[in-house]
Amino acid sequence: MSELFTQPVVKEIPPKGDDLSAWYTAVCLRAELVSYSPVRGCVVLRPYGFGLWENVQRELDARFKATGHENAYFPLLIPESLLMKEAAHVEGFAPEVAWVTQGGNEELTERLAIRPTSEVIIGTMYAQWIESYRDLPVLINQWCNVLRWEKATRPFLRTMEFLWQEGHTAHASAADAREETLRILDIYRDFSENVAALPVYAGVKSEGERFPGAEETYSIEALMPDGKALQSGTSHDLGQNFAKAYDITFADRDRTIKHVYTTSWGVSWRMLGAVIMAHGDDRGLRLPPKLAPVQAVIVPILKAGDRRALELAPKVLASLQSGGVRARLDERDQSPGWKYAEWEIRGVPVRVEIGPRDVEHQTVTIVRRDKRKGEEGASRTVPTGAALEAVRETLEDVQVSLFSQAREFLTSHTFVVGEKSEFFERCRNRSGMVDIPWCKRPECEAFVKAETSATTRNLRALEGTATCVACGEPARVRAYFAQSY
Amino acid sequence: MSELFTQPVVKEIPPKGDDLSAWYTAVCLRAELVSYSPVRGCVVLRPYGFGLWENVQRELDARFKATGHENAYFPLLIPESLLMKEAAHVEGFAPEVAWVTQGGNEELTERLAIRPTSEVIIGTMYAQWIESYRDLPVLINQWCNVLRWEKATRPFLRTMEFLWQEGHTAHASAADAREETLRILDIYRDFSENVAALPVYAGVKSEGERFPGAEETYSIEALMPDGKALQSGTSHDLGQNFAKAYDITFADRDRTIKHVYTTSWGVSWRMLGAVIMAHGDDRGLRLPPKLAPVQAVIVPILKAGDRRALELAPKVLASLQSGGVRARLDERDQSPGWKYAEWEIRGVPVRVEIGPRDVEHQTVTIVRRDKRKGEEGASRTVPTGAALEAVRETLEDVQVSLFSQAREFLTSHTFVVGEKSEFFERCRNRSGMVDIPWCKRPECEAFVKAETSATTRNLRALEGTATCVACGEPARVRAYFAQSY
Repeated sequence: MSELFTQPVVKEIPPKGDDLSAWYTAVCLRAELVSYSPVRGCVVLRPYGFGLWENVQRELDARFKATGHENAYFPLLIPESLLMKEAAHVEGFAPEVAWVTQGGNEELTERLAIRPTSEVIIGTMYAQWIESYRDLPVLINQWCNVLRWEKATRPFLRTMEFLWQEGHTAHASAADAREETLRILDIYRDFSENVAALPVYAGVKSEGERFPGAEETYSIEALMPDGKALQSGTSHDLGQNFAKAYDITFADRDRTIKHVYTTSWGVSWRMLGAVIMAHGDDRGLRLPPKLAPVQAVIVPILKAGDRRALELAPKVLASLQSGGVRARLDERDQSPGWKYAEWEIRGVPVRVEIGPRDVEHQTVTIVRRDKRKGEEGASRTVPTGAALEAVRETLEDVQVSLFSQAREFLTSHTFVVGEKSEFFERCRNRSGMVDIPWCKRPECEAFVKAETSATTRNLRALEGTATCVACGEPARVRAYFAQSY
Repeated sequence: MSELFTQPVVKEIPPKGDDLSAWYTAVCLRAELVSYSPVRGCVVLRPYGFGLWENVQRELDARFKATGHENAYFPLLIPESLLMKEAAHVEGFAPEVAWVTQGGNEELTERLAIRPTSEVIIGTMYAQWIESYRDLPVLINQWCNVLRWEKATRPFLRTMEFLWQEGHTAHASAADAREETLRILDIYRDFSENVAALPVYAGVKSEGERFPGAEETYSIEALMPDGKALQSGTSHDLGQNFAKAYDITFADRDRTIKHVYTTSWGVSWRMLGAVIMAHGDDRGLRLPPKLAPVQAVIVPILKAGDRRALELAPKVLASLQSGGVRARLDERDQSPGWKYAEWEIRGVPVRVEIGPRDVEHQTVTIVRRDKRKGEEGASRTVPTGAALEAVRETLEDVQVSLFSQAREFLTSHTFVVGEKSEFFERCRNRSGMVDIPWCKRPECEAFVKAETSATTRNLRALEGTATCVACGEPARVRAYFAQSY
């Protein structure tokens, strides 16, 4: 064991309702999603956690490619002089940058920033690549690591280094850039709801919550069990700000030289934090089948002298795998009860038990992770020949059921509020998403934040006229307020 | 255009035979595989280049997973004190490390290295994770960026930052670790020959060429057209060196505490450099179909007033894509000749032409990139209904043909030499792989290197007895000598 850092040892997972934060850390470690590392602020994504991330990547990547985007890779290090060209961007990111000042035995004449995000280096390259309207749009995405200097460490939610994807596009018109920004926002919403089983509010950010250098930032916001919101993806319309700072121009059809319009957008492994917190229960993770690294685990149950389950199990495994189910057979020399608990902690959506009775009748027993023991529909026994179909059906049911539960939670914790004292009270108490007509004034948001720690999550159109519930000025939008991660 | 660096502008690709280096750089840029970046020593992997890398990843990743490996992700930054624990490793890598010394506005009390490779951080974690023989083997791979401080920049072959995979495994016995090392070596050989169409020599490295901290290093070595070898993958048996330095122990079945045995192995985007150099010709890239981002490009040929090819082309495209061919339709407003040249530069293995005659007869014309115009079998015309099958067949043929040509080159440029002066001459002249009985003495290798710039590439068993052709001492192995990238 290294003396350089302390790895918390988790024996028991504390109840989720008592202390969400303690439960969260315990589950992340105990399910072997992550380990703490000897590098301050950095975690290791262990194979089970990486399996989750690979499924996020596969699902998002397919959606990006289906809408014409390609992947590329840009340098990790950004010369300081380059980083300093877009004023708002610098101000936003400079305090969070890690600096390389030595290479080999050499002191560098110019510091190199480890990318906190890649607008700068990608914008610089676009300035070289783009010449005419024929080159537009440029639709590029990058899967990579980025680093922002942070002291606190919470797996997935706040780490110094993290994995994400960042899309960067360039367009001939403001309308095209806005359309792209919203197209991606919708991909994020679709992914969140239909893959991660997380219902979200999608909308535009307030001025105070905007990405440094953006014209508009859009986000998807999920609600966690403690009533705090978690921003799970952002899509930025950068207008011509970066194009002007990095001189990205094109010759238009009318032969005049114009600046392009750019966008950027990202989802990080933070999304996994939302999945863990929203769906988990006192027994551990509950993973949506579409993201689960293992969708079905087969547990043979051996009675003394009867090891026939070990003969049937590989056949069931083969049948599930051939049908595209991510299945695993647990043949370890441990009791069934021990295995049940292990796989429950890891949130595997479906358990397939094969006991002596099952062997006798050529059946398997399918148990759902999302239900409690004894709950209606928690388990059923089917003939082995029907196992694949039954497991597939169950996986679909679990996916739908997790989404329904999370949607029920979001709906029941969204409060349309018309009265000022209730508004402040709900913001302070972390009731959930507090939905009011809002004036859109930064001063008003700052005041609410100072009083309650809540900020706007995102905004949408106001129908009719109303006054701002927070301050009484004329309202211009509807806003969700909440405390946030 | 940024004033920070100069992007070479490539109009014409110079003949490959005249100056391989100039040809190589021109092709990499002109085919839009890479761009130079404003970060010294770093290139941008553009979408077409990244498409190649994605295919390398997919093929290797499937092989790793089929042999029980899982992916994970470890931190980019390594505290200096941790890096310093394995002496040979430090000595090998310290001069190549980039150091982070500032985070935000804070001066760090301990420097952080950007990983040049991850044995150190992964070993530290294994020390925490592994407790008993039940936890072994640990079979983990990581796809990531690494950084080694370099001044020269040659796309893929030598860059400061590069993309790679690094596998790291831990085992209960020396035999298990050696078996793993060789299993991976064979995966690399298989990938190189059957996917990248690059014949290689696989074998063990000499002491002088060994990875810092390894017991044995194995490699695959390809031969480039200039007679220089290119090491394309390495697999290291680390014995207990890292286990002892990082205190990775386990309780064995006999309840005694023992150090584990570890391995590490990697293939980087350097492999793409070998693919480009070995297969390309005066017209540009020639990509092996299994790696080609675009396997078949459809070029409609329009005569004045006859645009029927534009109706047939999408149908052919759909048929190819539905059959799993990575096909693209080039509908740009350019002449067919211009398009042919563009796609030839990019090395697309098969071109599907649809001209007025083809429309008339409901045929397509299939043209192979690996043959010259007029060469036998360079093109054939088939009914549209047979296009998918014909394209698939052709892709298989091109794959085989590129491998055969490269194998013919390797074979004809491998020289079994028994005479000292011929040995030194061939080493100096870059004849290719110079195969001799060798004494295995570091002093002998150092002398040959000083005299000729050649080193051993890898070694294999010697049958019978012989004297070292380089120095006359008793031979212990057979060795391939060559100059190398």
